[in-house]
Amino acid sequence: MKVAVLGVGLIGGSIGLAATEYVPGVEIAGFGRSPERLARALELGAIHRAAQSLEEALDGAGACFCCGPVGALPGQVAAALAAAPEDCVVTDVGSVKHDLVERFADERFVGGHPIAGAETAGVDHARGDLFQGAVWYLTPSPASSGILYERLHRTVASLGARPVAIDADSHDRLLATVSHLPHVMANVLVAQAVGRGELPRVGPSFRDATRVAGANSAIWTDIYIANREAIADDVDATAERLRRVAEILRAGNADAVKAWNEEAAADRRRLLEAESAEGPVYELTLTVPNRPGIVAQVALALGKAGVNIVDLALAPASDMRTGAMTLWIAGEEQAARARELIGDLGFPVAG
Amino acid sequence: MKVAVLGVGLIGGSIGLAATEYVPGVEIAGFGRSPERLARALELGAIHRAAQSLEEALDGAGACFCCGPVGALPGQVAAALAAAPEDCVVTDVGSVKHDLVERFADERFVGGHPIAGAETAGVDHARGDLFQGAVWYLTPSPASSGILYERLHRTVASLGARPVAIDADSHDRLLATVSHLPHVMANVLVAQAVGRGELPRVGPSFRDATRVAGANSAIWTDIYIANREAIADDVDATAERLRRVAEILRAGNADAVKAWNEEAAADRRRLLEAESAEGPVYELTLTVPNRPGIVAQVALALGKAGVNIVDLALAPASDMRTGAMTLWIAGEEQAARARELIGDLGFPVAG
Repeated sequence: MKVAVLGVGLIGGSIGLAATEYVPGVEIAGFGRSPERLARALELGAIHRAAQSLEEALDGAGACFCCGPVGALPGQVAAALAAAPEDCVVTDVGSVKHDLVERFADERFVGGHPIAGAETAGVDHARGDLFQGAVWYLTPSPASSGILYERLHRTVASLGARPVAIDADSHDRLLATVSHLPHVMANVLVAQAVGRGELPRVGPSFRDATRVAGANSAIWTDIYIANREAIADDVDATAERLRRVAEILRAGNADAVKAWNEEAAADRRRLLEAESAEGPVYELTLTVPNRPGIVAQVALALGKAGVNIVDLALAPASDMRTGAMTLWIAGEEQAARARELIGDLGFPVAG
Repeated sequence: MKVAVLGVGLIGGSIGLAATEYVPGVEIAGFGRSPERLARALELGAIHRAAQSLEEALDGAGACFCCGPVGALPGQVAAALAAAPEDCVVTDVGSVKHDLVERFADERFVGGHPIAGAETAGVDHARGDLFQGAVWYLTPSPASSGILYERLHRTVASLGARPVAIDADSHDRLLATVSHLPHVMANVLVAQAVGRGELPRVGPSFRDATRVAGANSAIWTDIYIANREAIADDVDATAERLRRVAEILRAGNADAVKAWNEEAAADRRRLLEAESAEGPVYELTLTVPNRPGIVAQVALALGKAGVNIVDLALAPASDMRTGAMTLWIAGEEQAARARELIGDLGFPVAG
């Protein structure tokens, strides 16, 4: 398969390195604004060919990863879709999804977002194992082609990631809570510490909590702006939680303080357990109509219920009007839940 | 010197191991409520002798470290002062200082708080290098003896720590910001994430920000209660900062968002620089009246101005009415500032 990587920084370069390592016979064409960075990516083996234009990179491509910064993605995805072959899946790696998915109701487009990164940017820090075990959100729209969604799912899985389908709005609200809010909190914490007047020496818990304070403005201004409504809602809700904590503290009731802290301990345990939940893998086969949107519908229904699709495969029947869809789900309970949810959609599970 | 360690957990055990390693001829008597833990501390070499009683541990001691949990410290310090010889410095390692320092206006008592710890508690995790390079706050009261303060300063420094004098109130407000507030924020963040309904998979920035969520309630309930006013003030101020951030976000002005984020980056840099500020060491000698409170007064004045005393030494003059005090200060600018501040106190610096 030919793969186009647009923008060869940390993520684009790591996609190239991982694909080279894990996808047999892959050929990666890279394109980006800076000829120097492109040459460096070629030198590092992150791309196999430095294209002279976006069109050249997409010539004959089966998949295209748009890896520009969040603010540049609308333009990059539009250009990619204009140049991409008819059977090429176009995706991006931006951390805000709503606007893109709404804007590009093209059957070739599936939004994406790998939860991977590093404190260092640039292709020099790209690694073939960057995505090992990482969640890679996929945000198909109702227009997304099932065949192309499947190809993207499998490609992302072969890079070592765990693809998880989620609708764009839920993704953005989720990321507001688990990624953007911690960045806001870190910014506010350092401001609070510096605002004391004298500069304090800080301890390990402070350093952990503020590691991402003032993260790269070129990247984060775009993210804050693109997802501002969801982040602002979360920030307000958090401020309200803090006010309640201040009340509990001022009341000076040790039992109430302890109960509040114990609840946080239980919350943290639950979040860790949710991350590590795994089990034996079950195979589910179902027959679905052979039309756009079905795969996305199934993937989203499972993703919404927290059911993780380890792998999926599509096989059109000979009449081309229906198709067999096979899903692999980890964990007995999750597999049972998947059977139920898919049944609710009107597609009885055979296996 | 004989040293008494009351309570042999992570901190008490590490004091014992560090003193054994770095203080020539030291003899450490340990005492604690649990005979098993005491036996284990002896086995690990964290104490040299397991005392049968607090009184036995303090017999002939030159320094006593009270290492009980914050809630137990008032009782432990009172018992230690009742049993301690006249020339024994009694200190504690609790993370809240105001109540203790106010309660024990005894010339032998100097509050203390090493900024060191680990995610694991218990003497089995004690390490002789736990305090290497760590700030160790000392909170003398006006009643504290200069000779005993000096002894504690030097003992703490020989354990590898950087003693920093600070008055108890400032300490508690400082810790509210740099330690207790990050714990509150972590608790609130996990509650916000779990409060979404479905359990999200979280990323590295979330994990960093919530590592201390729901920290040991047995320890933290005491800390939250003991320092509740200062923490509640900080929590309220932080909630107010968050509300302003939500406003900036909703206004959707990229320049304002960028300016806010850049300010956080500058704040973080400033905090890191404050931590690593060092330089060549300057020696300052001054003559001071030989009475209680003077050493504390000098140490606090410098600590308040952010001037770090690397080491200090006291030598009473033959008339016993005055004494020579020698201070070692790191950094030319800090040394100049120290000279000025000490001059302001009416003690001209000779060297």
